Amino acid sequence: MKNLPWEGRPEGCRDVMWRFSHNPIIDRYQIPVSNSIFNSAVVPFGDGYAGVFRCDNRAVQMNIFAGFSKDGVNWEIEHEPIRFNAGNTDMIDSDYKYDPRVTFIGDRYWITWCNGYHGPTIGIGYTFDFKEFFQCENAFLPFNRNGVLFPEKINGKYAMLSRPSDNGHTPFGDIWLSYSPDMKYWGEHRHVMSPAPFDQSAWQCTKVGAGSVPILTEQGWLMFFHGVITTCNGFRYSMGAALLDREDPSKVIYRSKPYLLAPAAPYELAGDVPNVVFPCAALTDGDRVAVYYGAADTSVCMAFGYISEIIEFIKNNSL
Amino acid sequence: MKNLPWEGRPEGCRDVMWRFSHNPIIDRYQIPVSNSIFNSAVVPFGDGYAGVFRCDNRAVQMNIFAGFSKDGVNWEIEHEPIRFNAGNTDMIDSDYKYDPRVTFIGDRYWITWCNGYHGPTIGIGYTFDFKEFFQCENAFLPFNRNGVLFPEKINGKYAMLSRPSDNGHTPFGDIWLSYSPDMKYWGEHRHVMSPAPFDQSAWQCTKVGAGSVPILTEQGWLMFFHGVITTCNGFRYSMGAALLDREDPSKVIYRSKPYLLAPAAPYELAGDVPNVVFPCAALTDGDRVAVYYGAADTSVCMAFGYISEIIEFIKNNSL
Amino acid sequence: MKNLPWEGRPEGCRDVMWRFSHNPIIDRYQIPVSNSIFNSAVVPFGDGYAGVFRCDNRAVQMNIFAGFSKDGVNWEIEHEPIRFNAGNTDMIDSDYKYDPRVTFIGDRYWITWCNGYHGPTIGIGYTFDFKEFFQCENAFLPFNRNGVLFPEKINGKYAMLSRPSDNGHTPFGDIWLSYSPDMKYWGEHRHVMSPAPFDQSAWQCTKVGAGSVPILTEQGWLMFFHGVITTCNGFRYSMGAALLDREDPSKVIYRSKPYLLAPAAPYELAGDVPNVVFPCAALTDGDRVAVYYGAADTSVCMAFGYISEIIEFIKNNSL
Amino acid sequence: MKNLPWEGRPEGCRDVMWRFSHNPIIDRYQIPVSNSIFNSAVVPFGDGYAGVFRCDNRAVQMNIFAGFSKDGVNWEIEHEPIRFNAGNTDMIDSDYKYDPRVTFIGDRYWITWCNGYHGPTIGIGYTFDFKEFFQCENAFLPFNRNGVLFPEKINGKYAMLSRPSDNGHTPFGDIWLSYSPDMKYWGEHRHVMSPAPFDQSAWQCTKVGAGSVPILTEQGWLMFFHGVITTCNGFRYSMGAALLDREDPSKVIYRSKPYLLAPAAPYELAGDVPNVVFPCAALTDGDRVAVYYGAADTSVCMAFGYISEIIEFIKNNSL
Amino acid sequence: MKNLPWEGRPEGCRDVMWRFSHNPIIDRYQIPVSNSIFNSAVVPFGDGYAGVFRCDNRAVQMNIFAGFSKDGVNWEIEHEPIRFNAGNTDMIDSDYKYDPRVTFIGDRYWITWCNGYHGPTIGIGYTFDFKEFFQCENAFLPFNRNGVLFPEKINGKYAMLSRPSDNGHTPFGDIWLSYSPDMKYWGEHRHVMSPAPFDQSAWQCTKVGAGSVPILTEQGWLMFFHGVITTCNGFRYSMGAALLDREDPSKVIYRSKPYLLAPAAPYELAGDVPNVVFPCAALTDGDRVAVYYGAADTSVCMAFGYISEIIEFIKNNSL
Amino acid sequence: MKNLPWEGRPEGCRDVMWRFSHNPIIDRYQIPVSNSIFNSAVVPFGDGYAGVFRCDNRAVQMNIFAGFSKDGVNWEIEHEPIRFNAGNTDMIDSDYKYDPRVTFIGDRYWITWCNGYHGPTIGIGYTFDFKEFFQCENAFLPFNRNGVLFPEKINGKYAMLSRPSDNGHTPFGDIWLSYSPDMKYWGEHRHVMSPAPFDQSAWQCTKVGAGSVPILTEQGWLMFFHGVITTCNGFRYSMGAALLDREDPSKVIYRSKPYLLAPAAPYELAGDVPNVVFPCAALTDGDRVAVYYGAADTSVCMAFGYISEIIEFIKNNSL
Repeated sequence: MKNLPWEGRPEGCRDVMWRFSHNPIIDRYQIPVSNSIFNSAVVPFGDGYAGVFRCDNRAVQMNIFAGFSKDGVNWEIEHEPIRFNAGNTDMIDSDYKYDPRVTFIGDRYWITWCNGYHGPTIGIGYTFDFKEFFQCENAFLPFNRNGVLFPEKINGKYAMLSRPSDNGHTPFGDIWLSYSPDMKYWGEHRHVMSPAPFDQSAWQCTKVGAGSVPILTEQGWLMFFHGVITTCNGFRYSMGAALLDREDPSKVIYRSKPYLLAPAAPYELAGDVPNVVFPCAALTDGDRVAVYYGAADTSVCMAFGYISEIIEFIKNNSL
Repeated sequence: MKNLPWEGRPEGCRDVMWRFSHNPIIDRYQIPVSNSIFNSAVVPFGDGYAGVFRCDNRAVQMNIFAGFSKDGVNWEIEHEPIRFNAGNTDMIDSDYKYDPRVTFIGDRYWITWCNGYHGPTIGIGYTFDFKEFFQCENAFLPFNRNGVLFPEKINGKYAMLSRPSDNGHTPFGDIWLSYSPDMKYWGEHRHVMSPAPFDQSAWQCTKVGAGSVPILTEQGWLMFFHGVITTCNGFRYSMGAALLDREDPSKVIYRSKPYLLAPAAPYELAGDVPNVVFPCAALTDGDRVAVYYGAADTSVCMAFGYISEIIEFIKNNSL
Repeated sequence: MKNLPWEGRPEGCRDVMWRFSHNPIIDRYQIPVSNSIFNSAVVPFGDGYAGVFRCDNRAVQMNIFAGFSKDGVNWEIEHEPIRFNAGNTDMIDSDYKYDPRVTFIGDRYWITWCNGYHGPTIGIGYTFDFKEFFQCENAFLPFNRNGVLFPEKINGKYAMLSRPSDNGHTPFGDIWLSYSPDMKYWGEHRHVMSPAPFDQSAWQCTKVGAGSVPILTEQGWLMFFHGVITTCNGFRYSMGAALLDREDPSKVIYRSKPYLLAPAAPYELAGDVPNVVFPCAALTDGDRVAVYYGAADTSVCMAFGYISEIIEFIKNNSL
Repeated sequence: MKNLPWEGRPEGCRDVMWRFSHNPIIDRYQIPVSNSIFNSAVVPFGDGYAGVFRCDNRAVQMNIFAGFSKDGVNWEIEHEPIRFNAGNTDMIDSDYKYDPRVTFIGDRYWITWCNGYHGPTIGIGYTFDFKEFFQCENAFLPFNRNGVLFPEKINGKYAMLSRPSDNGHTPFGDIWLSYSPDMKYWGEHRHVMSPAPFDQSAWQCTKVGAGSVPILTEQGWLMFFHGVITTCNGFRYSMGAALLDREDPSKVIYRSKPYLLAPAAPYELAGDVPNVVFPCAALTDGDRVAVYYGAADTSVCMAFGYISEIIEFIKNNSL
Repeated sequence: MKNLPWEGRPEGCRDVMWRFSHNPIIDRYQIPVSNSIFNSAVVPFGDGYAGVFRCDNRAVQMNIFAGFSKDGVNWEIEHEPIRFNAGNTDMIDSDYKYDPRVTFIGDRYWITWCNGYHGPTIGIGYTFDFKEFFQCENAFLPFNRNGVLFPEKINGKYAMLSRPSDNGHTPFGDIWLSYSPDMKYWGEHRHVMSPAPFDQSAWQCTKVGAGSVPILTEQGWLMFFHGVITTCNGFRYSMGAALLDREDPSKVIYRSKPYLLAPAAPYELAGDVPNVVFPCAALTDGDRVAVYYGAADTSVCMAFGYISEIIEFIKNNSL
Repeated sequence: MKNLPWEGRPEGCRDVMWRFSHNPIIDRYQIPVSNSIFNSAVVPFGDGYAGVFRCDNRAVQMNIFAGFSKDGVNWEIEHEPIRFNAGNTDMIDSDYKYDPRVTFIGDRYWITWCNGYHGPTIGIGYTFDFKEFFQCENAFLPFNRNGVLFPEKINGKYAMLSRPSDNGHTPFGDIWLSYSPDMKYWGEHRHVMSPAPFDQSAWQCTKVGAGSVPILTEQGWLMFFHGVITTCNGFRYSMGAALLDREDPSKVIYRSKPYLLAPAAPYELAGDVPNVVFPCAALTDGDRVAVYYGAADTSVCMAFGYISEIIEFIKNNSL
């Protein structure tokens, strides 16, 4: 990647990952109808970047919107939500769409999101150009959220992480792996990881869910994930990372016991939902990595790090 | 009204309503004993304004206080709560009083509030001068909140909106209409409106309650109301508006699908109860309208708009 | 009353009230469509008795049915639910009707019941002949249950006991008194009695609700009521009695600390809702009293006693 | 079927379905280790019947056991639970197994059950002879229960009904349809039916789940299902029936508004879980149908009816 | 013991423990004021037996009563609750008393019970003669239940099992051990055992609590305990047994994976709280053991067994 | 005390207590591994101060750390948590440690904290030098928090305040007093104070817990405590004070009806848990008092006042 959005580690900073000094990069009111823009996904596209953005409008209806950027920081987001044509199905019902992820596999960009069809489940779609979009069969029965595709087939099959949930705010949540030969039928469901015991890593003791599309490294798949603790004043979402086995990504090699990023900046501590750091995408040009995360369910922010350091860190601080 | 408190739409603002740049107009500690001053009501009075203010003291006892202002922005609030004499009843028990509304009907100012009598219900009182106050029979059995009188009789009877509730934080709530021939006995209860479906207007999907005293327009009664969504970190209160039928206000003509104002300013996002915008009063001098709302259960704020634009907006964006 | 249904105290019985040996007098399947018949009300009518019966059909839709009996024990219940004409209102919506009470005041029989109109509230109707029925305005806003009229006006006004509730199974409940000049508008709401402290009378520590129409005695209004305890396996409903002041029935003179009847018979311990004794009506011919109660939300049963003994008992065992 | 277990309609009975007079046919203690035997499935096998039985042992561990019968009424149940070999997967983990269903498709008997793998999901297995058993991939991600296969392929694919749930007692539940080309990967998930509105059919207002394997009739697939109401003392499970479209079984043609069988017999009203009627299998030899159901989570019982009458009934009493 | 109450194993019975054919031995109404008599304790006394009985009166006030029996089966229970004098404290407040246990240590009979003092905790008292009783300091802070003393000092100190709880129906519960040098100050709290994992022994997966006073055997302390499962219709209490280390009873040597007795008899399945078997006392004359247990929170019952067989059973079926 | 950390009352301030203008004095990230530092305790030590600090690390594991300061404001906190040797017990298990308090009695510094041993309970330890630490027996059975020792023996025994709780966020909580002859066995538990009625002092209506070590004054023991209200968005913790009887500290002489300090500063309104003011220590040099409190479960802050004024205030504003 030629022009990874990037800002070096601030002087005196001893953290593995650090925030962008221009956060938030996308404000809640950036498009006319938006109440909030957050939990969004980006990929390299052409000589810049494309993205799929969660914009809740002022009726607080949840939907996903396409956007484009030259530098990954300054974004033009469409003012109308994505309209899908029928892909491998005619059943493209959707009461709402939120928390998208995007990845390129083979010849197209695949999008997954939380799709409302008698409850939340994993919607799947694809595009070749971020102009025309096609919706496929939902991957699973409800209730499910945080479906994240691997960026390539594994053992000849598509592979997806997801987090079975309930129809509300879900006070539990494990990460699972499922396979599909054709992006239509899914099976071979394997358990990947559970919340951590309270006394070992409380920030991730209520639930965990896949964040960004996993990044293939020599040591395994690097996956940023969110972990949640239930305080007496509600949920607090932080970000950790795990390394999954290359051949069998249901096997966790390392998993960060400390978080990598937790709500502490003002734009993370206050907003529509205070105390949320929620990663949905990561760009990398080798060792450098730029993570996009939703802040306080209100805006889009970025954090940076070095993959080698991150892996070293979670190896030395593994649960 | 000669001197409506007012500030024009800020440059570049494309919203139907906008905040006062001097918010909050009343700080939590404005009177010596107060912990917070919010959710309060004002009316034109003499050559200025009078109001009834919810002040929780530092024991966090809830009570209502009289106040006066020349300009509707700068307020002198009494340091002692209102003391009521017996009106149409001797039963003027009150464990607590909060969230007042005020309106002038006929020859006097009627006040309604949430009155603690074996649980919250709707207290009613009146005053001629904001010095001497008289308490009447409670309108309803518990549990009820947000009782708001229409500013004139309808079909010869007093009419009141209210929101039946429970004895706690009430995770539900519809707006109802009731009539009384005499401000003592109430009946002809009619259902007015329910929370909206989550996928159509999530900001008002948990509960809705009447806000300010309805404003009579040619097209119907304009009522600002609050709507609530339950996030994983608690309730978020926003403001919408509805237009009710002139003859039968239980009929909703239009109802805003988008909110008109939702917590986004710092004084709305943090405070005793974060993420609350709670309208309790509105002044108008024709087309201009000034809304008073409680922010974060902590302070009193104002927002402005034009009635014609608001009605146009909710007509074009009706649920 | 010439032919009060009656059975004397069984030999060796030392209880204040005792069960009918032919219980249940009405079986759950007595009419073709019924799933259960229970919580029903009877009054003297002609030379026999008439009644209004709660019959849930096999879709478990709740409705009320008229019935007739020569002796108060053997009943003919209509196979179709009561159809109401408009009384003092055109608004006779009803999603469901249950738990009726009946009393004669002035020139007609008044019926109250739990009426479904955007939640449970108190429905009111009347009949002159148990053939033609008229429905009036609901007495209150939701949520309310167990509305029981006094059998005569008090201080020139109709008087009703009720139990404000919630929209579910209601883990709380006090008895209240309200007045109406005209059976249309209601007010002067007064608190009558709360659940008892757990350590003083646990069978009535969750909620209490009026049961039968109060009986006027020289010492006051004798009211049978239900009290509920929450065990680890759900609610248990028992029956107590209270004596209310003749002039001001919001004043409780005596209230039974022990129950008068609690679930112990097989037909009370098992059924659609185990462990329920729920009184809804009482007949008397002077000192003898016959109480009709629902058993296990399944069938109609009877218990007997002497009013003088009952009053003596609650006087000597008052909370 | 030559020797369908059967007992004619009792004299005077006007119900569409009626209980076997020898209920329960299998007692809770029928095998040495059992605490309870219920919610079990049977199919014709050889010149008699075979079955898969849920037996909870006295540690209340849930497992499934094979059994055989000449007449469908008197059963020999194995004393050891079924041991599975690997079918189309090596992943045959199972913390527990319960609520089996069985059907013959093509060349073998397919078994589905609630399988414990990090929460309840749908386990799938097969046998040719009820001696050797093979376990396949779980159909879905948790949480799911009541997976019921259609007895033949639909549009060339296996089809399964299921009820997405949670990890506890699940106060909600819809019936869904999913397809698989190969019994390994599943997709094309379609919503079939939701709980009924409380005021229309309260016995099925909390959740509904498929019961027996659907029976193909000229008018469509006849499916017995369970419906649940939440009383103040817990869940009550009853049995209804629905007719699904032959070509697209996600379409409900008729659905019984009244129940067909609800807890009323002593063995249904008392037991490990009172008030449960839970159908898991049905045998038919043309018009006659014999339904096997679990009673009170304690024993196995039977009920009978005529398919033509049942379809007529649900047609005339459809939701 | 000369005359242990006893009945041999019924013909054909293959269970380790069996019920008394004359159950319940004490009916709910045995004394004039009682609503229920259950969860009670007995010890050898003089040439017969004495006991302390939980009798809830008809106000459902919980209290403990003394009783005497020649044969351990037929009991005379006092009609007035035990009155305590001050023992090692003047603070003998008690809002309620329930679930007593009794054991002889040294020179007197020690009684423990659930004592209401700002919530449930463990009350301690003693008597020499079951006529005069003395109350001591409560052992612990609230909230606690099921305090059971060992029948002799261990390492020179009194030792007590208990189950920390909450102020309600307590959906959790472990067994703990505490020591006291003087029956006044307690410490050295050690964890003994937790509920079992659901998939290993579901009948004891919600909570466990000590039942009878432990019996010293050569192999360790034999303790009967109750275990609870949460069904969709509430708690179900069953009885198991554990063997604790003689020197350090916080060490569990064996613990029964299957229950020894679970609700199945009619008097256990129906009553004030259905599905409860709750052991509180055990008598033994060597190998034979007679256990007293409360049934359905309604009556007192007995079950029998041989200690050698019970130990063998829990050894072979240990969790 | 020679150099009490101190800042005089700000000009115009009319409050009894006021915040330090340099708050927070300890930032969340002050030591390398910390996520937050709050709810900590300090004592005079040598010619300066020593303290025990709650630092949650970035795995959000809770532990306590020693620290030292010359002036009580600027602190050096160890980078490793305290390691305990065995004191009066070998059982020094601890899953987590948090919310410490420290006081000097006799010859050593005693530390109490919330200790994780099968749930939260009160851990006890001591040190002579803040270098070597010794852990003793836990004071109580779980579940307990906020154990606070009196700084001298009372009637010859150690005395401790505590707040029995549950294993979660505990929506209740009273303050209790217990005694011990030897810091090993505890008893003579007495109830001290309950939450206040909602309508009298709502800020302390959910729970109350001891804060700082009580300060002996001529008029009694001055104890700062926290009180909690449950808003619709979670708990809000404020600080009050009470005066306890010198001879029998279970007797409350005065108790502040208004709070002394409640969340209002930005660092109290936002953080890991918004809206928390949680006092854990107080220093005094006669009349001046400096209180250390945790802010928003994130940082350490200070507030100041005069003991004479505080006592006068709670005397004049007593509950």
